[in-house]
Amino acid sequence: MALQIDSALETSLPEEKAIPPVIHQSMRYSLFAGGKRLRPVLALAACRAVQGDDSKVMAAACALEMIHTYSLIHDDLPAMDDDDLRRGKPTNHIVYGEAMAILAGDGLLTRAFGLLAESAFAEVADQQETSLAQRYLQVMAEIAHASGSQGMIGGQVMDIEAEEQKIDLSTMEYIHQHKTGALIKTSLRAGAILGGGSEEEITALTSYGEYLGLAFQITDDLLDVQGDTAKLGKPVGSDEKNQKSTYPSLLGLEKAREAAETAVQSAVEALDNFGPEAELLRQLALYLLEREN
Amino acid sequence: MALQIDSALETSLPEEKAIPPVIHQSMRYSLFAGGKRLRPVLALAACRAVQGDDSKVMAAACALEMIHTYSLIHDDLPAMDDDDLRRGKPTNHIVYGEAMAILAGDGLLTRAFGLLAESAFAEVADQQETSLAQRYLQVMAEIAHASGSQGMIGGQVMDIEAEEQKIDLSTMEYIHQHKTGALIKTSLRAGAILGGGSEEEITALTSYGEYLGLAFQITDDLLDVQGDTAKLGKPVGSDEKNQKSTYPSLLGLEKAREAAETAVQSAVEALDNFGPEAELLRQLALYLLEREN
Repeated sequence: MALQIDSALETSLPEEKAIPPVIHQSMRYSLFAGGKRLRPVLALAACRAVQGDDSKVMAAACALEMIHTYSLIHDDLPAMDDDDLRRGKPTNHIVYGEAMAILAGDGLLTRAFGLLAESAFAEVADQQETSLAQRYLQVMAEIAHASGSQGMIGGQVMDIEAEEQKIDLSTMEYIHQHKTGALIKTSLRAGAILGGGSEEEITALTSYGEYLGLAFQITDDLLDVQGDTAKLGKPVGSDEKNQKSTYPSLLGLEKAREAAETAVQSAVEALDNFGPEAELLRQLALYLLEREN
Repeated sequence: MALQIDSALETSLPEEKAIPPVIHQSMRYSLFAGGKRLRPVLALAACRAVQGDDSKVMAAACALEMIHTYSLIHDDLPAMDDDDLRRGKPTNHIVYGEAMAILAGDGLLTRAFGLLAESAFAEVADQQETSLAQRYLQVMAEIAHASGSQGMIGGQVMDIEAEEQKIDLSTMEYIHQHKTGALIKTSLRAGAILGGGSEEEITALTSYGEYLGLAFQITDDLLDVQGDTAKLGKPVGSDEKNQKSTYPSLLGLEKAREAAETAVQSAVEALDNFGPEAELLRQLALYLLEREN
């Protein structure tokens, strides 16, 4: 599946030599820097769970990965988290400079919506089907909301404002639900909606997405305490060094691990009405408890 | 028309107090900082020229202004042009800091596409009309292309690369056609397409948009040589100080003025097959020759 996604991403951006080359090199550098492709995998897996065809969701899967990548490029900037390394490689602004990193992020975000619109246009023109157009437009609107100022961007804003402050559990949950949770949940919804799922199926996969996002964040925090720097591609212990409030710091290590297990269990239970077609989603949830990066 | 546009922009963004408030204040600060609303006016005027209803194009008009505004916020950043003033007011990062300015730009860009998708969804759901959905999707794709890495962002990249270098006329034209021309042309096309114009009408308005964009840029360069600092809201002579290649510096003052007049004349001629419904567009073109800011 990862190969299929990488190949779709490859053709969904202008080539490296497209004018002006430096911006396309910079966009591609970060898009192909070894990401796990979690959001595209979730979108494809949700589409398969509702027995939809991969082709219906591939553009949205690529758009989600581009939006995730742009958010990482901008988060790493000196004015934000000022990170030099990401997945063991120099961050975009270290390689291309700050101006180009800002523009590469802007370019990926813009291309994400361009790709969605182009793909939807082609599908609708081909099939003359209003309901398909509606589904695409719904997904576009949801992706924009999940990644906008009341979604992912809003989460990053709260995260910046919370820096080096003691925050309570509800503020931390707000940050996670918006900064990472919203786009993860929307990846599932995009797959379910574009795959032609029923209302019940979309609701179940939304619920799965919410629990999965929570489990993902708790295990992320746990890895920062107990992980392996080499496998993670970034130093462990950075949250404690930055006095960042995390699930382990607020709940304690044991309770945090329990919370991750409960969230994974709830995610799997949300899939109860699905058969083997949702097996990939079940495995993905269980895998979070064993992840090493 | 400006009031109508401002009122639509007002309701198309989350309120100032929406969580997190600081990002919405920052987004609104720049969106309501006294812009001329050129792109929305052009979109509405093109829609009227094809005898379409204002309501069809208002979301696209707002999206175009949000994209223009985000590009100004990011261009003004210390890593880019490092400008402290814009239209006589402190730039976004001076008021809200660099991190928030980056995120406010991202938020406006994201909201632009969200607004387009939401409006298209509502229209299509209401009318069950595939061709309307197609028109919206075409406009979205065109706006993304015009503002993306091979459009506006590409122009900004070339502009950065050309800094303090002598460039030739064709490079300067590339920069202008992409950095400002592409979105201006697309504003006309958006109005013509969403207004339901014929192929001939869309082609004529596209041609008008190309000439208008050129005239706009030349008169912009001329104002920097001969304008009035108070009326402009920014110091004159900055292009010469920054050794920037401009139409006056490459062609000479007299030839540059002639080129502006020729472009305006060509823009007006592109409207030959339209009647009084295109009068606003004719006036807009002629006004460029007398503009003071």
